[in-house]
Amino acid sequence: MFQSSPALFDEVCQHVRQSSLLTSVSAVLEWDERTKMPAAEAEYRADQTTLLSGMIHQRWTDEAFVAKVSELAAGPLAEGADSETAVTIRRLKRLVDKKTKLPRSLVEELARTAVLGQSAWEQARRENNFAHFRPWLAKTFELKRQQAEALGYKQSTYDALLDDYEPEELTANVGRVLTDLREQLVGLVAAIRASSRQPDTSLLSRNYPIDVQESFGKEAAAACGFDFARGRLDVTVHPFCTTLGPHDCRITTRYDEHFFNAAFFGILHESGHGIYEQGLPPDRFGMPLGEAISLGIHESQSRMWENLVGRSRAFWQHFYPTAQKRFPAALGSTSLDAFYFAINDVRPSLIRVEADEATYNLHILIRFEMEQALLNGDLPVADAPAAWNDKYRQYLGIVPRCDADGILQDVHWGAGLVGYFPTYSLGNLYAAQFFATADEELGGLHAQFARGEFLPLRNWLREKIHCHGQRYSAAELVKRVTGRELSSAPLLAHLRAKYGELYGI
Amino acid sequence: MFQSSPALFDEVCQHVRQSSLLTSVSAVLEWDERTKMPAAEAEYRADQTTLLSGMIHQRWTDEAFVAKVSELAAGPLAEGADSETAVTIRRLKRLVDKKTKLPRSLVEELARTAVLGQSAWEQARRENNFAHFRPWLAKTFELKRQQAEALGYKQSTYDALLDDYEPEELTANVGRVLTDLREQLVGLVAAIRASSRQPDTSLLSRNYPIDVQESFGKEAAAACGFDFARGRLDVTVHPFCTTLGPHDCRITTRYDEHFFNAAFFGILHESGHGIYEQGLPPDRFGMPLGEAISLGIHESQSRMWENLVGRSRAFWQHFYPTAQKRFPAALGSTSLDAFYFAINDVRPSLIRVEADEATYNLHILIRFEMEQALLNGDLPVADAPAAWNDKYRQYLGIVPRCDADGILQDVHWGAGLVGYFPTYSLGNLYAAQFFATADEELGGLHAQFARGEFLPLRNWLREKIHCHGQRYSAAELVKRVTGRELSSAPLLAHLRAKYGELYGI
Repeated sequence: MFQSSPALFDEVCQHVRQSSLLTSVSAVLEWDERTKMPAAEAEYRADQTTLLSGMIHQRWTDEAFVAKVSELAAGPLAEGADSETAVTIRRLKRLVDKKTKLPRSLVEELARTAVLGQSAWEQARRENNFAHFRPWLAKTFELKRQQAEALGYKQSTYDALLDDYEPEELTANVGRVLTDLREQLVGLVAAIRASSRQPDTSLLSRNYPIDVQESFGKEAAAACGFDFARGRLDVTVHPFCTTLGPHDCRITTRYDEHFFNAAFFGILHESGHGIYEQGLPPDRFGMPLGEAISLGIHESQSRMWENLVGRSRAFWQHFYPTAQKRFPAALGSTSLDAFYFAINDVRPSLIRVEADEATYNLHILIRFEMEQALLNGDLPVADAPAAWNDKYRQYLGIVPRCDADGILQDVHWGAGLVGYFPTYSLGNLYAAQFFATADEELGGLHAQFARGEFLPLRNWLREKIHCHGQRYSAAELVKRVTGRELSSAPLLAHLRAKYGELYGI
Repeated sequence: MFQSSPALFDEVCQHVRQSSLLTSVSAVLEWDERTKMPAAEAEYRADQTTLLSGMIHQRWTDEAFVAKVSELAAGPLAEGADSETAVTIRRLKRLVDKKTKLPRSLVEELARTAVLGQSAWEQARRENNFAHFRPWLAKTFELKRQQAEALGYKQSTYDALLDDYEPEELTANVGRVLTDLREQLVGLVAAIRASSRQPDTSLLSRNYPIDVQESFGKEAAAACGFDFARGRLDVTVHPFCTTLGPHDCRITTRYDEHFFNAAFFGILHESGHGIYEQGLPPDRFGMPLGEAISLGIHESQSRMWENLVGRSRAFWQHFYPTAQKRFPAALGSTSLDAFYFAINDVRPSLIRVEADEATYNLHILIRFEMEQALLNGDLPVADAPAAWNDKYRQYLGIVPRCDADGILQDVHWGAGLVGYFPTYSLGNLYAAQFFATADEELGGLHAQFARGEFLPLRNWLREKIHCHGQRYSAAELVKRVTGRELSSAPLLAHLRAKYGELYGI
């Protein structure tokens, strides 16, 4: 058996690579569906993707394959913390375990409920009628409890669900950091709102021709290091980033002729995801060492380029003269300071996806806290809308006028995504912590940005984070890169410094 | 067995539909590769398509499936000339027979030679060095002989190869009609060239802004009946039409700001293919009754819309005022007559793909005659360049100055496509014969075109041709629709009438 292990490992890798080929074919179909496909084709396209999903699932749960992975995991090749082979085997074992632990009946019920729940959510939201969604919300959390029990967990039920998005992370850790963050943020946001200094945001709603937005956005994304020779930018209603193969990462955006932020910061955000994907080792594509480690780490890359880079004064010291040339009617007679303040407006709102850098995490906290309460049964589903509104009043000082802008605002729960929300805030926290370290190690990032130098940061991220794929868990990666456990301090320091200056607080 | 046949038939259909799903997935990948994919991704995309091709081939040659098809073909369901079930079984049996008759070693050798032959052709053409391609040309025809022997044929070796593109057609029939055509065309072209009337074609090289070309081309294609709600138009170097599913047919074109014809007639041509595809019954997609019957019939649809409709005076009686409005700088002060004459310029050239309606078929004839001679061994490969040049002198009155513009001009032979060329001329012949019948039955098509009415013709084609899928062979279809065997008379009558008037001959 010691002799045969390397051959067995090659066999398993070969099998996984072929499964990944099919997964990437699915990615091509999905990208096409969302960007180019005539709507009339939707039903047949669903048949195509269903067939592929079935084939992919079958390959991952194939008995002979599962047995081989188990044999490898129990053997000598799985030993050694840092060996590429050992890491690969452990990651595959984890994946296979998760895929085989859930009974088929539960998988099917989860899939069915996600489709029907999302459809019920759409109707409930359209009609502002929580009662229509309530039974589906109850059923979703009931199934999620069953899923967590089947998968098992270390400390809390929520751990098992969080693991799908942030592998190996614990709810208690996340809760500790996010609660820290909440306590500080609520005060910071209140101080900002009380400030007499406020930006003129109307300048962002002037006329920004769409073709110029596109070329300017691509220019900025390319400067940040997104490689258009290995990617594309297209238009969709809901922007996203997807990877179709080792040299093909595609981002999308939407343009609003009368709002600068949507496309520009959207492109930087998706480019951040894309830069991570493009930094993964292409020769490990489809294998654990060629894949992103977690949604939180992924989000840290998008948030870093969108906010820590793209919403910095230094970034605009370099890019603002170009922006003025490209949009002379809108920005020709507007100062850099006025523009910089406008893109950093902080304003509590009801809608998460429109939230600024400071309030965004409060939106996430509300969802994270509610998910745990709904899962543990501490919060009856019938009381959820009121609990939602209470939290908005408490953390953001505003109350949704209706459930459509309240508990019905996100698709996630209807689509069966529970445990996903905290990764957005984790992303912000990781980003700030990574950025602070990069700033130290690279000797002052803002001075570089002001000179138009963004590649040193891109390359640092590539070397410290991207190239490792799934070698280290997110928590290990944060520790290795920054020398510290995850903490809310770097994000809070960043927000205090930035908004302190802007709002004079 | 009588009892079980319908269930068996359902099983076979289910299997075929799933194979077609995979084939259509491949079509999505290929469309994406040719229109959107970053070039850096080529190698991985090839891995994806190779995996799918292997899976599709495996499904079509699966022993249990083949046995079921044979059982059905020998049973009572296969009887009855016109029953949908019987036709489906017969078409599937034909397909399966062809796929299983070729030994795997020959299939692999053909595939390998096609790749290497095409690459050798590219180099030979670039370097104008026939000697570099000669061994591959010899090998290709040698393998094609083996392929024909393995498949079997009725009268001539060439029959077996023609069958891949024009099922059930016989070389002798095609030869008879094309030889007729050649004898008349050579004289017609000579008379045209001798005419003192000649068009001013320089007006086609004025400035035609690309975005206007696109919108005008789409407007014309939509008027002809191409349904953009079930299709798209994109840009590629080599224009094509492809079908990705029952409601998703995509065409492509290329734009030249200083040449009107390339994109406009290219769009009409590909729309013609697309209108055929869109007219096939969507609920039979992926089954024989939902697929095109032959390349010749396919080409008849593209040529009809490109030439018989798009190059008619009546078409421009309707569209020319719009064209003048859209391209005021280029066409504002040009008369309809001058424009109409220019787009119908007849001029013997060396390059097939740039040939006009009259000379095009002479280019095809040369290739058709040479293919037969090379296949039968009547023409040694070493003598092929000289034979090619002799035929150009004899039929078109011009001689290639080099092999790159001569025998090396087409990719087909390098890519292993032997028997394909005649379908281009068959397309022209079918088109003229269908058009003449439609003109009679619909009571004067040109008067309709002049009023902007193109849908009566589109609907007639749909009802007479498209909706049948593979129910009738091309020859049967021609007989059913026009009441006559295929003949060169309608095409010659069309060309004589049109050019007689234009050139005063």
